[in-house]
Amino acid sequence: MSSFEQWAQSCSQQLENAISKRLPSGEQFPQRLHQAMRYAALNGGKHFRPLLIYATAAALDLPRERVDSLAAAIELIHAYSLVHDDLPAMDDDDLRRGKPTCHKAFDDATAILAGDALQALAFRILSADDALTDDPAVRVRIIRHISDAIGSHGMAGGQAIDLESEGKSLNAAELEAMHIHKTGALIRAAVVTTAYCAPDVTRAQEEALDHFAKCVGLAFQIHDDVLDETGDAEEMGKTVGADRARDKNTYPNLFGLSESRSMARSLIDDARASLHDLGAKAEYLHLLAEFVISRRG
Amino acid sequence: MSSFEQWAQSCSQQLENAISKRLPSGEQFPQRLHQAMRYAALNGGKHFRPLLIYATAAALDLPRERVDSLAAAIELIHAYSLVHDDLPAMDDDDLRRGKPTCHKAFDDATAILAGDALQALAFRILSADDALTDDPAVRVRIIRHISDAIGSHGMAGGQAIDLESEGKSLNAAELEAMHIHKTGALIRAAVVTTAYCAPDVTRAQEEALDHFAKCVGLAFQIHDDVLDETGDAEEMGKTVGADRARDKNTYPNLFGLSESRSMARSLIDDARASLHDLGAKAEYLHLLAEFVISRRG
Repeated sequence: MSSFEQWAQSCSQQLENAISKRLPSGEQFPQRLHQAMRYAALNGGKHFRPLLIYATAAALDLPRERVDSLAAAIELIHAYSLVHDDLPAMDDDDLRRGKPTCHKAFDDATAILAGDALQALAFRILSADDALTDDPAVRVRIIRHISDAIGSHGMAGGQAIDLESEGKSLNAAELEAMHIHKTGALIRAAVVTTAYCAPDVTRAQEEALDHFAKCVGLAFQIHDDVLDETGDAEEMGKTVGADRARDKNTYPNLFGLSESRSMARSLIDDARASLHDLGAKAEYLHLLAEFVISRRG
Repeated sequence: MSSFEQWAQSCSQQLENAISKRLPSGEQFPQRLHQAMRYAALNGGKHFRPLLIYATAAALDLPRERVDSLAAAIELIHAYSLVHDDLPAMDDDDLRRGKPTCHKAFDDATAILAGDALQALAFRILSADDALTDDPAVRVRIIRHISDAIGSHGMAGGQAIDLESEGKSLNAAELEAMHIHKTGALIRAAVVTTAYCAPDVTRAQEEALDHFAKCVGLAFQIHDDVLDETGDAEEMGKTVGADRARDKNTYPNLFGLSESRSMARSLIDDARASLHDLGAKAEYLHLLAEFVISRRG
């Protein structure tokens, strides 16, 4: 196992502990709802957003424990969005990461409510967790950024654009706009709000990290589309080719595989270039950026 | 029109302006999502929670403008919960306030996303609106209370309990627990977080207002159940007797109509007694409490 893989595994472990501690136990009333929330939030996954948070913290000399609650909140938001996206009224997916989706393991109503409650819990964590910051103004700034990133101008808006565009052909600008909303906004929020926690971060560093996150987020999505065409069904945990089969708007459908790969590569180069002034402490951000376009699932 | 009705109408007007200003226009991309959010949030209704907020503000000498954003945020959360509750996977209602429910006017997927985005917008407003407070610590306290009140230990939890209990008979304690979660927590949050905005509010006043809100919230629900048995279909904007027909757990089903009415009356007496020390400035809270059990729709 490479040192990057070791680092990622230890971050994932720390994140799962952080989430598990903050989620009500499945024994707590109302039990079924809490079980569904735990099922949705603790089902593995790549933990890409939390890894970005821990890597950004390392680049800014913040101890990991400082951003555990931020990582947990962002992952809970991501988990809620997947639960709702998978619903029959939305993407109607039966499998997520090789396991039954939340509404399959429970039921549609419970999945809707589990998603709703996970969103609320994320804001509860951001507003209440002591280790995040001593400064309420920083806390407010973090909540403002995240609430903006996941609303109608961000993640929820992106999902709406995605649904509306099914069966229609998007051009390159429209496809990019969809992804900037749907996944880009939360990925950027993960990195930028981590920077908010560092007391002596400069404006230039915030902007460099934001640019990094913007590029990495888009590359992540392009590579996801590429994997969906070429990937290994078992590693992906879902049906390969599903996006193409449903005539979805993807980068390979619009640009072809080779051009899509090369777009992702340039975005990662651009992302890494923006880390220049952070020096060697940005090591995990560099490694994470490379991982984005080398992963096979 | 009584002076209370005039006051309530002017509060409602102010609230609708406050909400309308804070919601993206229906022309803004993604349009359909924004149209659904506006449809759900600006469809009239009793505005009970905002009226409680404005009445509490009056009792504590806070100008109405100070709590416009709080009233808007709480009403957006209430609106999101109705949109999700009405979905086919949940209560499956076609009508809300005499108009097609959000998923009927749009579609299920858009209704799910509109609800999600309304929740996020509420937190955006609470974290960003300048008039609410100058003190970020107060802002954080408000967000903490509200995020707690609407999660799995509050509103979303209550809806889960409601769904699970359908077809089962709840006893009095279980029925009360359901309502304390489902509607009580947000009603209490509306009143208590308004108190947080008043710089010189005492702990005793906060507790008195919390007790007031707790009693009024439960009376509101009991009276709702009573109206559902006896009310006028047109005024209610939904099918009378629907709760009984579906064998739902309601106060009249458990206690009979007359006992339910008298329980609501005692709760309102109890609520009003707790306002004693606030004196004449609590006038609108008293009037609102009486309105709760005298309204016919």
